[in-house]
Amino acid sequence: MNKTRLEAFSDGVLAIIITIMILEIKVPEGNNFSDLLPLFPKFISYILSFIYVGIYWNNHHYLLHGLSKVNGKILWANLHLLFWLSLIPVSTGWMGEHSFSKAAMALYGLILLFSSVAYFILQKIIISSEGKDSILAKAIGKDLKGNASTILYIVGIVCSFYNEWISGACYIIVALLWLIPDKRIEKFFISAEKTIDS
Amino acid sequence: MNKTRLEAFSDGVLAIIITIMILEIKVPEGNNFSDLLPLFPKFISYILSFIYVGIYWNNHHYLLHGLSKVNGKILWANLHLLFWLSLIPVSTGWMGEHSFSKAAMALYGLILLFSSVAYFILQKIIISSEGKDSILAKAIGKDLKGNASTILYIVGIVCSFYNEWISGACYIIVALLWLIPDKRIEKFFISAEKTIDS
Amino acid sequence: MNKTRLEAFSDGVLAIIITIMILEIKVPEGNNFSDLLPLFPKFISYILSFIYVGIYWNNHHYLLHGLSKVNGKILWANLHLLFWLSLIPVSTGWMGEHSFSKAAMALYGLILLFSSVAYFILQKIIISSEGKDSILAKAIGKDLKGNASTILYIVGIVCSFYNEWISGACYIIVALLWLIPDKRIEKFFISAEKTIDS
Amino acid sequence: MNKTRLEAFSDGVLAIIITIMILEIKVPEGNNFSDLLPLFPKFISYILSFIYVGIYWNNHHYLLHGLSKVNGKILWANLHLLFWLSLIPVSTGWMGEHSFSKAAMALYGLILLFSSVAYFILQKIIISSEGKDSILAKAIGKDLKGNASTILYIVGIVCSFYNEWISGACYIIVALLWLIPDKRIEKFFISAEKTIDS
Repeated sequence: MNKTRLEAFSDGVLAIIITIMILEIKVPEGNNFSDLLPLFPKFISYILSFIYVGIYWNNHHYLLHGLSKVNGKILWANLHLLFWLSLIPVSTGWMGEHSFSKAAMALYGLILLFSSVAYFILQKIIISSEGKDSILAKAIGKDLKGNASTILYIVGIVCSFYNEWISGACYIIVALLWLIPDKRIEKFFISAEKTIDS
Repeated sequence: MNKTRLEAFSDGVLAIIITIMILEIKVPEGNNFSDLLPLFPKFISYILSFIYVGIYWNNHHYLLHGLSKVNGKILWANLHLLFWLSLIPVSTGWMGEHSFSKAAMALYGLILLFSSVAYFILQKIIISSEGKDSILAKAIGKDLKGNASTILYIVGIVCSFYNEWISGACYIIVALLWLIPDKRIEKFFISAEKTIDS
Repeated sequence: MNKTRLEAFSDGVLAIIITIMILEIKVPEGNNFSDLLPLFPKFISYILSFIYVGIYWNNHHYLLHGLSKVNGKILWANLHLLFWLSLIPVSTGWMGEHSFSKAAMALYGLILLFSSVAYFILQKIIISSEGKDSILAKAIGKDLKGNASTILYIVGIVCSFYNEWISGACYIIVALLWLIPDKRIEKFFISAEKTIDS
Repeated sequence: MNKTRLEAFSDGVLAIIITIMILEIKVPEGNNFSDLLPLFPKFISYILSFIYVGIYWNNHHYLLHGLSKVNGKILWANLHLLFWLSLIPVSTGWMGEHSFSKAAMALYGLILLFSSVAYFILQKIIISSEGKDSILAKAIGKDLKGNASTILYIVGIVCSFYNEWISGACYIIVALLWLIPDKRIEKFFISAEKTIDS
């Protein structure tokens, strides 16, 4: 089976997810700058979700980079991840529509949590298929970032019932955690490839 | 003619179909978790259709994998399949909008039936073009799954006039039939490729 | 410059055009089969436009197949073609919404006419870039089909002011003209490639 | 890391951006040609934005053409560019909806300005990664066009508060600046590649 098509299909779906979110930002009805103000929460939600989908695309890259053979399990674990990511636009829209209301923040966190679980499953399946000594298995190591994200998502979801801003802060922290380039993984890949080549 | 573009175009269309279905799930108007409840049938329909499109993408993969040369007939048979699949989002939306009403269930089954017929035609054309001794022809064999699906679709459509839940069950069974990885085909391809290599 | 990206981008745009047309077919509000009836003209329009976009994708394939080098002119002529094709969904929607009214039929014909002119320009530019002795130039020859299509489009547009069904017939005839596989071109390519290989 | 996926993802997003703009042009409600008249400003806005996205796609091509290795910085600078470009459809829709009102013209200019800044950042990062002696660095040179565009965008934004037509003219001039093929860059690449080959 063909890795190229798996990548192409995932890229297509991710490109559509990241772009159709903009359709939630409806053209304002008025004619003045002040008519843009109600769009502000939608715009902020859009930025956050854009970054999240960007992070997933970025990490998906690395994940499939070390992949040598595709099987049915990987295919479906990948579709499972895309499923949860495809729900991001709706929950982003809800969050923006109601200016970060408690329920919307909880739902957003839930979808992020399920997406990260789906990513974790895909990662596990790829590692078990590639072997524990594969480049990927070594590169991920203890997956501290992944664990920290999971905890922050759960904190964010629980907090959303008391204070929506704390959960907002949790989601932003997770995004920053992944946005700041992980030099270690990148270096690991480069050095690993050098070792293989030599 | 170029197989890569056929795959790329099909991947693009399938990626769009699987993702625009989410646009049928409109952002809820209220502000509470209870406002998500009316979305539940839409969500269930979305999951089912997501799995169906995923299955088609998956099988389409295998179908084109064994293909060596593309001709006009294959191109149009492929477009014919994409046509029926492109109707899945609308009928999914209808099914979700009216909580699996009888008419919506019948229409959904009809579109699944036509999609499977289109897939069958594409398969026939590819086999007749590749030859009866091709890997694909051998891998498909008696196509028990395909025949079982057709029967289940027809049962589902007929039952929808009496009881919509029976037809729902039929569509779910077909999805499960294909979701459970078909070890035989996968193994067949792997062993066939080994034979060719050696 | 890179032919692959030109193809990939065109495939992407064509895949989106062919799929977003379905968004014009809104989920019916009622709960019965009879609620599907008003969708019938939309469905017919969708089929016709699906075939047209399919034909353009198919021909675009052949056109770029014989292309060896991409330049700025080709890039923009290609975007120009995609521009006119991107208007097909709106005019399809208008045609379906008003059950093939005279004005909608004229607009549809106009957009088909401009698309075919844009295709003709792209073809000219590619031939002038590849040389008159190129495979493409020989394969196209006198372009009888292209000329016949142009005449039929114009007849269709003019007739739409008197009788919308005649113009509908014109557009269907053009689609059939291109749908029926042009054995000559396909054979020409195959024999030309054999000559090159030998 | 893989340049192909960066290109494929960008192509996907740009293809979606350029095509979903058409969704802002809603199917007219009436039945006559006169019902198309209110769509005229939307159509003009669509043409302008189509050309802009086309230019970005075209230039993005050249930018990545000379790229040999992708890193995290380039990936995020690219996503940053796609982010601003993804806002073009909404502001195009606003501009068309209110027939080029002052506020809409200012917003459109702002988004074009931010897009060009994002492009500039991406270019800087690629050059700093490839080295000052790279083909790209030499091809871009003093980037007169880029600087002229920035000035024209700012003039356009400022003027929009007094006269919306001047700002419209500014945006059209920038588009023409880039639309007219830049023979120098194209020639530079061709000669540079010849030098490398020999």
